[in-house]
Amino acid sequence: MKTNNTTQNLHHIVIVGGGFGGLRAARRLAKAPVRITLLDCNNYHLFQPLLYQVATAGVSPTDVAYPLRSIFRRQKNLEYQMADVTRVDLNNRRLETTNGKIDYDSLVLAVGGETNYFGMESVAVNGFGLKGLKDASTIRDHLLHLFEQAAQVHDPQARQALLTFVVAGGGPTGVEMAGAISELIRLVLTKDFPNHDFSQARVLLLEAADRLLAALPAGLGQATVKALLKKGVEVRFGAAVESYDGQAVQLRDGETISTRTLIWAAGIRSAALVDTLAMPQAAQRRVRVEPTLQIPGHPEVYVIGDAAYLEDKNKAALPMVAPVAMQQGELAADNILRALKGAPQTAFLYHDPGTMATIGRNQAVAWLGPLQLHGFLAWVAWLVVHIFQLIGFRNRLLVLINWAWDYFFYDRAVRLISPTEPKTPLRKMERGQIQKP
Amino acid sequence: MKTNNTTQNLHHIVIVGGGFGGLRAARRLAKAPVRITLLDCNNYHLFQPLLYQVATAGVSPTDVAYPLRSIFRRQKNLEYQMADVTRVDLNNRRLETTNGKIDYDSLVLAVGGETNYFGMESVAVNGFGLKGLKDASTIRDHLLHLFEQAAQVHDPQARQALLTFVVAGGGPTGVEMAGAISELIRLVLTKDFPNHDFSQARVLLLEAADRLLAALPAGLGQATVKALLKKGVEVRFGAAVESYDGQAVQLRDGETISTRTLIWAAGIRSAALVDTLAMPQAAQRRVRVEPTLQIPGHPEVYVIGDAAYLEDKNKAALPMVAPVAMQQGELAADNILRALKGAPQTAFLYHDPGTMATIGRNQAVAWLGPLQLHGFLAWVAWLVVHIFQLIGFRNRLLVLINWAWDYFFYDRAVRLISPTEPKTPLRKMERGQIQKP
Repeated sequence: MKTNNTTQNLHHIVIVGGGFGGLRAARRLAKAPVRITLLDCNNYHLFQPLLYQVATAGVSPTDVAYPLRSIFRRQKNLEYQMADVTRVDLNNRRLETTNGKIDYDSLVLAVGGETNYFGMESVAVNGFGLKGLKDASTIRDHLLHLFEQAAQVHDPQARQALLTFVVAGGGPTGVEMAGAISELIRLVLTKDFPNHDFSQARVLLLEAADRLLAALPAGLGQATVKALLKKGVEVRFGAAVESYDGQAVQLRDGETISTRTLIWAAGIRSAALVDTLAMPQAAQRRVRVEPTLQIPGHPEVYVIGDAAYLEDKNKAALPMVAPVAMQQGELAADNILRALKGAPQTAFLYHDPGTMATIGRNQAVAWLGPLQLHGFLAWVAWLVVHIFQLIGFRNRLLVLINWAWDYFFYDRAVRLISPTEPKTPLRKMERGQIQKP
Repeated sequence: MKTNNTTQNLHHIVIVGGGFGGLRAARRLAKAPVRITLLDCNNYHLFQPLLYQVATAGVSPTDVAYPLRSIFRRQKNLEYQMADVTRVDLNNRRLETTNGKIDYDSLVLAVGGETNYFGMESVAVNGFGLKGLKDASTIRDHLLHLFEQAAQVHDPQARQALLTFVVAGGGPTGVEMAGAISELIRLVLTKDFPNHDFSQARVLLLEAADRLLAALPAGLGQATVKALLKKGVEVRFGAAVESYDGQAVQLRDGETISTRTLIWAAGIRSAALVDTLAMPQAAQRRVRVEPTLQIPGHPEVYVIGDAAYLEDKNKAALPMVAPVAMQQGELAADNILRALKGAPQTAFLYHDPGTMATIGRNQAVAWLGPLQLHGFLAWVAWLVVHIFQLIGFRNRLLVLINWAWDYFFYDRAVRLISPTEPKTPLRKMERGQIQKP
C-alpha cells in the first residue's frame, strides 16, 4: 500500500459495515482531514429493500448489489478492506479481523442486522431467512425448483405440500414476500407450465399479532389485508410459529401446515459482533447507546443503525430501518469531527421520512407524514422512491428495464435455478450460513 | 398434467439437452404432429459464447441464461422437464432420469460437452473449468477475491503468486479469457485499488502447440498473438501443463509457475451420458454417428453437437462448436419427420458460417469465408453477431447496456463476490461439481 507519513498520522476512523448507515458515515467524512478504513465481509453494498424481488425472480442479484470499491473510487481518504471483524478490543482500540488486527482512533459500528429465529433452531435450520443476497437467491432457486418438482408429482397430498408457501411475519418484508410469491405463481408460473394445474397453490402469511404493518396506521394495515386477499394470499392472525421440521409448520395453537417452504420474516436482531463489546443490550441484541450514539465509557466508539438501541421522544424504540441507520451514520460522522475540534457532541433526533410497503402489481401502502396512501398511487410513489434510492445510474436503469418488462409482459426476468445451489435448507448449516445457537 | 388420448398416441420425441443443438431441434418440430419432451438438468438455455464475460465481471450470469420455459411457452407440442438423464436403455427405448423412467419413440441426444482434463486429476480438482454458469461465477468470485487478498499481503513472493493468472489453451475460450482478465486488471481493478500497485500482475496464456486459434488461418493466429501482447498477456507456446496442486503449475518441460489460478480452457469432451449407449466412440468421448446422425442399429436415436463424431468432406472431424450443433439439430428434426413419412434420411452437410474470437476492447479476429478480419472491424462484427444471437430482447438489451457501460466508463458492471461461494477450487469436489475419475 502506498501511504506516507502524513496520512499515517491522520486521525484513523474505522467503519465496520458497508450498509446504509456505514455508507452514509463514510460519505459524510469524504472531505475531512482523516484517514478512513471501511470494513465489510462482502465487497458490495446491498440494497436490501429490493431483496424480496431477487427472491421472487423479479430482478437479478447483481442489480441490487453495488461494489463498494466503485462507490469509493473517488474518495481519497478512504480505504476499503474486505474483512470479517471477529472482535472489538475496546481497551486497546483495536479490531481483530480476518485481515489481522486493525487499530482505530474512532470506531463506527454499523454492523446491521441478521435474521432472528428467537432460539427456534428448527426454523433456523429448515426455514429461509431473507437478509443477504445469498438468502434471496436461495429462496428463488427453491421456489422455482418446487414448481419443477410439483409438475412431476401426482399424489395430491405431496403436491399440496410442495405448492404451499408459508411466510411468517406481517411486517413490510413478509407482506412484500407474500404478495410477490402470489403474483409469481398467478401471473408467471401458470404460463410457464401451461399443461399443469397449479390452482391448489396456496400462499399463507402468518402474523402472531392481530394486524399487519404494525408500524403504520391501522387503516393502512386493513387496506393491506384486503389487497393481499385480492391477490390470493391467505392472511392468518394470531398464528405463532413454534417449530418447522422442513415438512410441516407447527403453530402454537396446535395446528400444523404441511409445506416445504417457510420464509421467516418475523424477526431481526443485531449482528453478533456487538456481543464482543460486553455492553448493556436492549431486546434484539441492540446496544444501548447514548443519545450521541456513543457507548458508555468509550466516547470514541459509535454504534448506529440496527445494532444501536435508542428511544424517540415518546420513549418508543427507534425502528430497525434504513432511514434511522442513514441519519445516525451522518450524525456519527459529524460527532467524530466535533470531537476532533473539541466541540460538544450532538444528540440524535430522528426525522421519519415515512414508511412504504408494496403488495404487488399496482398495489402499495405509504405513510408519509400526514399522508396515508394505498393502491396505485402509493405503488407509483414506491417505485419512484426506490428507483432513485438505488445506487448507481446503471443499476437504476437495469432494474427499471426488468420492472417494465415484468409489468408489460407479465413475465419474471430472472427465473433461473442456480445449478449447484442447495436445494434444501438443511444444507445451509453444512455451508456455515447458520450457526447452531 | 392435462393430457388426453390424442396427444398420448402421438409419436413421442425426447430431446436431451437444451443447448444450441437441442433448442434448434425442438424449434424445428414446433408445428409437427408429434409430442416432444425436452429434458435438461438446468432450467435455462445458456449462451456459452459469453461465459468468459461472466467470469470476468462484464455481464451478469442472468444475462447469458434464458429460462427454457420462457422459450417454449408458446410451443404447444413440447413439455419441458427439469431432469438429469442417467442412462439410455436403447433396447427398451427408455431413459432413466431423476424424474423416473421416460419412454421415447425417437431420441435426440444433444447432451453437449464438458471440460476435459485428460485424466489430470490435480488440474480437475484445483483448476477452473469454464463450461457452466457456476464455473463462470466461481471464476469471477475467485479473481476478485484474489485482488482483495493481494491488497493485504506484503510478502513479494506470496503477492506474485496471488497476482499471476494462468490460462491454459490457445483456442477461442483461452484467448478470450486471457484478454478479458488482462483488461479487467488494467482498466478496472487498478482504479478500484488506487492505493495499491498491481503492476506485478501477470496474465499467461499457455498453448501446448505452436500457434493460437489453430482452427483459423495462420495470419489471424499471429494477429491474435500481437494483440494479446499489446494487452499485456504473455503468450507461451510449447507449454504443456502436467499438473497443478493449487500452488504451482508444473509444465512438462520442468518449469513451474507459482499461481493461485489455473483456468483450464485446453480441452472439452462429450458429456458422460453417451457412455451408457455403449457405442463406438472417437476421441473426446464423441459417439461415431452415421452421416444421417443416427447411431448404428438404432435408427430412432440421433446424436448431435459436441456428443457426435462426424467428418467433413476433407475427412476432418467437425468441430465442437455451436453452428455444428444447431445445424445438426435441424437435420435430426427433419430426419425424424422423414422417417415418420417413410421418406429416406438425409446426410449432414456442414455450412461453416465462420469463426470469431474477441481479444478485448476494440480487438477481435474473424474468419468469414473468404474474409479475414482483425482489429476494430472484427470486434464490431463480433459485437453485432453476438448481440443478435442472444436469445430474448430483454437479455440483448441488458447485455448491450452492460457493454456500453464498460466501454465508456472503463468499468465492469458485475464486480460482486458471492458471499458463500467456494473460495478455493478444492471445495468444488466436496460440492460434487467434480467427480473423481
